[in-house]
Amino acid sequence: MNEMKAPPLAASELMGPNEFEAAIRAVGTERYHDKHVFHKLLHGGKLNKGQVQAWALNRYCYQEAVPRKDAAFMSRVHDRDLRREWISRIHDHDGLGEEPGGIERWLILTDGLGLDRKYVTSRQGALPATRHIVESYVRFVREQPLVVAVASSLSELFAPSIHRERIAGMLENYDFISDHVMAYFKRRLTQAPRDSEFALAYVKANARTREEQEACVDAVRFKCDVLWAQLDVLNHAYVTPGLIPPGAFVPASL
Amino acid sequence: MNEMKAPPLAASELMGPNEFEAAIRAVGTERYHDKHVFHKLLHGGKLNKGQVQAWALNRYCYQEAVPRKDAAFMSRVHDRDLRREWISRIHDHDGLGEEPGGIERWLILTDGLGLDRKYVTSRQGALPATRHIVESYVRFVREQPLVVAVASSLSELFAPSIHRERIAGMLENYDFISDHVMAYFKRRLTQAPRDSEFALAYVKANARTREEQEACVDAVRFKCDVLWAQLDVLNHAYVTPGLIPPGAFVPASL
Repeated sequence: MNEMKAPPLAASELMGPNEFEAAIRAVGTERYHDKHVFHKLLHGGKLNKGQVQAWALNRYCYQEAVPRKDAAFMSRVHDRDLRREWISRIHDHDGLGEEPGGIERWLILTDGLGLDRKYVTSRQGALPATRHIVESYVRFVREQPLVVAVASSLSELFAPSIHRERIAGMLENYDFISDHVMAYFKRRLTQAPRDSEFALAYVKANARTREEQEACVDAVRFKCDVLWAQLDVLNHAYVTPGLIPPGAFVPASL
Repeated sequence: MNEMKAPPLAASELMGPNEFEAAIRAVGTERYHDKHVFHKLLHGGKLNKGQVQAWALNRYCYQEAVPRKDAAFMSRVHDRDLRREWISRIHDHDGLGEEPGGIERWLILTDGLGLDRKYVTSRQGALPATRHIVESYVRFVREQPLVVAVASSLSELFAPSIHRERIAGMLENYDFISDHVMAYFKRRLTQAPRDSEFALAYVKANARTREEQEACVDAVRFKCDVLWAQLDVLNHAYVTPGLIPPGAFVPASL
């Protein structure tokens, strides 16, 4: 007689807050980009300067998309208190008044790597796939239900450890990386936890059906994939097999 | 013999900056909502309190849409300097930190008119057409070319005179309107000119073909129509013929 498997557990009941949070956090363990081979090469000092330039140049596109996805989110929010809370994310990235913001700090990194600012901000040297991937994130936030859009920001739950690892690993392993140019990551160590705490509480309070909860967990997967796919295309173009697509940045030191 | 008409002037050449600005300003003369019969009734003291309540309640939907359309605009802007400039519009409406912002000032007006805040911010008592009209404005800004989206804000060129008229007329003519509740309009007397100067300079610098210039002039028309149509539906529902659609606010004093 065939062995009978137990039927799958009914997955139609609302998860409790702890179970829901654990399901979200499990996505990080499963697929946050700190597990990507390119990340390990980057932080382990295994890349040459041209490959680090390619990473910084492509990642600029992501940095630049973030305040736009936050604005896309705000454009759909009727709750003024939520907009007033969310706008601080745009301030963090674009700056406000005297505060230059995270994108400016990213450009200090690309400056430090010897890349021309106009070339970086033109996004013309980025891999076409990078641009497609980050714009898909902006679109996701513009189109998905609000609670799902908020959930897609929750990859920030996993960010502080990668930032700490990045700061230490890159400073230690590359003579072309100085403390000064790592300012972006140092600032994110305090910004990301504040944002992800708010977003986690929002998602836990506002995902009110099992389907919404699962859509939120899927949104964290989607977002981790956005980050992972950016490293896939970098790895393919600049490491293995090292096939740079037409028009994309060609490092001098490759 | 039939009389021959002169052929229309060729309209394919770029307008000079003065001609272009004049074409934009002419739209105000042609169709800004200070010419609407409802506006004249409102400012001339010819409405009863219930009708003024209906106006304030519906206009809240427009006020509430404005920071969302500004966020929709920012979500499409790759130029960080432009985003850093534009975000001040969201601050003006939503407030920032201790500054409560224009929407809060609008709610002081609806408070003063005896309307419940939750009812106002729910937008449930607004005319369905009001909601359609203002969301169409958000969509326009999200979908049109950037320079055309900016141009749609240029109805602000015509705003200070209407605000001055509104403050004077409403204070003089209604015993239920106090100086305190008119704070929104007084603040806009300084905010609107700053914003419209920036937007006008942007449009003049960035509309680079005749077609783009005409699309910008059309955008100002579109925006004036957004404002005009809101008064049309108010007039129809609450003045002549006074047909309030199902579910919309019914004033106690009608």
